[in-house]
Amino acid sequence: MSFSNTQQEPILVLDTQRCKRNINRMAERALKAGCIFRPHFKTHQSNTIGRWFRDAGVTGITVSSVSMAKYFIEGGWNDITIAFPFFPQQLKGLKEIEKAASLRLFVNSVEDLKLLNQQLSNPFKFFIEIDPGAGRSGVSYENTELISQLIDTSLNQSKSRFHGFYIHDGRTYSARSVEQIQQKINPTIDILVELKNSFPMANISMGDTPSASTSNRLDELDEMTPGNFVFYDFMQVQIGSCSLDDVALYAVLPIAQKIPTPGRTIVHGGAVHLSKEFLQDNDQNNFGQIVHYSANNDISETDLSISAISQEHGTIRGIPDDDSYVWVCPIHSCLTANLYDQYSTKDGKSIEKRILS
Amino acid sequence: MSFSNTQQEPILVLDTQRCKRNINRMAERALKAGCIFRPHFKTHQSNTIGRWFRDAGVTGITVSSVSMAKYFIEGGWNDITIAFPFFPQQLKGLKEIEKAASLRLFVNSVEDLKLLNQQLSNPFKFFIEIDPGAGRSGVSYENTELISQLIDTSLNQSKSRFHGFYIHDGRTYSARSVEQIQQKINPTIDILVELKNSFPMANISMGDTPSASTSNRLDELDEMTPGNFVFYDFMQVQIGSCSLDDVALYAVLPIAQKIPTPGRTIVHGGAVHLSKEFLQDNDQNNFGQIVHYSANNDISETDLSISAISQEHGTIRGIPDDDSYVWVCPIHSCLTANLYDQYSTKDGKSIEKRILS
Repeated sequence: MSFSNTQQEPILVLDTQRCKRNINRMAERALKAGCIFRPHFKTHQSNTIGRWFRDAGVTGITVSSVSMAKYFIEGGWNDITIAFPFFPQQLKGLKEIEKAASLRLFVNSVEDLKLLNQQLSNPFKFFIEIDPGAGRSGVSYENTELISQLIDTSLNQSKSRFHGFYIHDGRTYSARSVEQIQQKINPTIDILVELKNSFPMANISMGDTPSASTSNRLDELDEMTPGNFVFYDFMQVQIGSCSLDDVALYAVLPIAQKIPTPGRTIVHGGAVHLSKEFLQDNDQNNFGQIVHYSANNDISETDLSISAISQEHGTIRGIPDDDSYVWVCPIHSCLTANLYDQYSTKDGKSIEKRILS
Repeated sequence: MSFSNTQQEPILVLDTQRCKRNINRMAERALKAGCIFRPHFKTHQSNTIGRWFRDAGVTGITVSSVSMAKYFIEGGWNDITIAFPFFPQQLKGLKEIEKAASLRLFVNSVEDLKLLNQQLSNPFKFFIEIDPGAGRSGVSYENTELISQLIDTSLNQSKSRFHGFYIHDGRTYSARSVEQIQQKINPTIDILVELKNSFPMANISMGDTPSASTSNRLDELDEMTPGNFVFYDFMQVQIGSCSLDDVALYAVLPIAQKIPTPGRTIVHGGAVHLSKEFLQDNDQNNFGQIVHYSANNDISETDLSISAISQEHGTIRGIPDDDSYVWVCPIHSCLTANLYDQYSTKDGKSIEKRILS
């Protein structure tokens, strides 16, 4: 694939065919498992891409902030999970959207639950986010006292309905094979299943892309909310969630300087175009994998990568074949996508997205 | 300092007084050293902040792309250095701006120099960017053959005027004291001075904030182009370029959840609000330093920091005193600023900036 010789800035190219294939494949996995699919939209943040999910039968979505919920409400969504711990400063924003959409919130304290019941006008559902030991947000799975308190409190309140338990277990990101993903996620699925045994009215929901892409235990869940799979990225290839052929998003970076000795290439593409996420291969940092994108849309890995970045410069150890551009498979597509104000398609069209998070 | 209890998203607070003090102090350093001050505007990317530089006597600026040059031309600047290796895809954009501003370009090959002379209509100046051994862009300081070729070629061309040598030596970022900054930058200043001895018509110019803030050899240079100093950040405090009292930019993040056992706080503020830049203290990652910002504008370090981040979550090991927000000194203000569409001032006003790079 070649781009215009006047493209002077990095662009983000979305392979719409691969993206739709990813959406349809995940929707089918959920359907087969009997699991409700509420995809996380924080990765793409685009109402155009959102419509492709609707075409695949999706009616409820997941977001990570009230303002992201507003953007997707404007795109016609009215069943929205805000997968981030509720905090009181959100109340003003929640009051603005509660009439436009049925909300599922994450509530992790009795105080917050009472506050929401006092302040909101409409009924809302809530998840108790469970920390399976990963050490991020939520209530420890061992804290059954607080879990019972939250559910019991809700019974005496007028607006809140307990919906279930949610886990995003980011520890699967350190897996490097499908087998390792299973080893890491199975104890977490066990936690969800045990919680459901103790609280049978609960729906259990899980979020991470590695598990959603590979687990054979999705049928034990009620809902799944992966997000990254819409594009995938080079980290997901390394984890074992997908193959390079599934990655739908590429940064196309102008080559700025080739330095034959000692063999180094400078591209216009730095931390503000790729993010500073990196992988380590043999003690070398990889901020983006150079790929070959053929005329008939085949993608293959080259042995080159972005080994150093500053704000606007990327450095490749080695000299790519192409003279004008390199195609870079991003390490973490969620962060890379967040740095652009639109997606470009391979036939030169633009796809709108929300700007900044 | 406290913010509205309806601020539900991370905001970026600019301390305008400290920012103007940084601008004036660096302008004075340059004046005292007899050095022309052409500050890099990639850090702030704001025409409002640009005017504060004009108030300090600045007439020429430095940017990193043609589109950033366009933004500042709209703000009234007409003397612009594009501090990034020229590549042919920039020609269309350069033709659009060459009549509006006097340009200084970075040209590192004879072929590019001839192409620019053929294609541009107006005279332009060019720097030869020198790689002092840091391994990023530019011509190796040892490649005197190519340097002579570029200067000689220019003599026979109608538009280009050789302006001088430019070095941005990022290796000062690994210093952790003023003394270490000097040890790292002095051999680089020696290279510039030797080049000037060999090519006496050359202006010599240097870019990095640690050297610009602390070197006592600025009088040996003709120009200086630092950028980060306008805000500084926690990395510059660690390097020794400034004190915490000089940092002018803070991310103010809502507290989302306090988890008393084992003592952890979740804030709404992740990689899309801070960037993934980090420092390592005693094997612990620091993605942002929590500070105390007093009612009379004193800033002091706390013993808390953001020790882990995902896309939207930040995790603090420990529990801050404040219930609603934490003030975070960013690790790398250039990358953090790039993630927001405006700056907020402490009295609740907005300052416009360019969105995305």
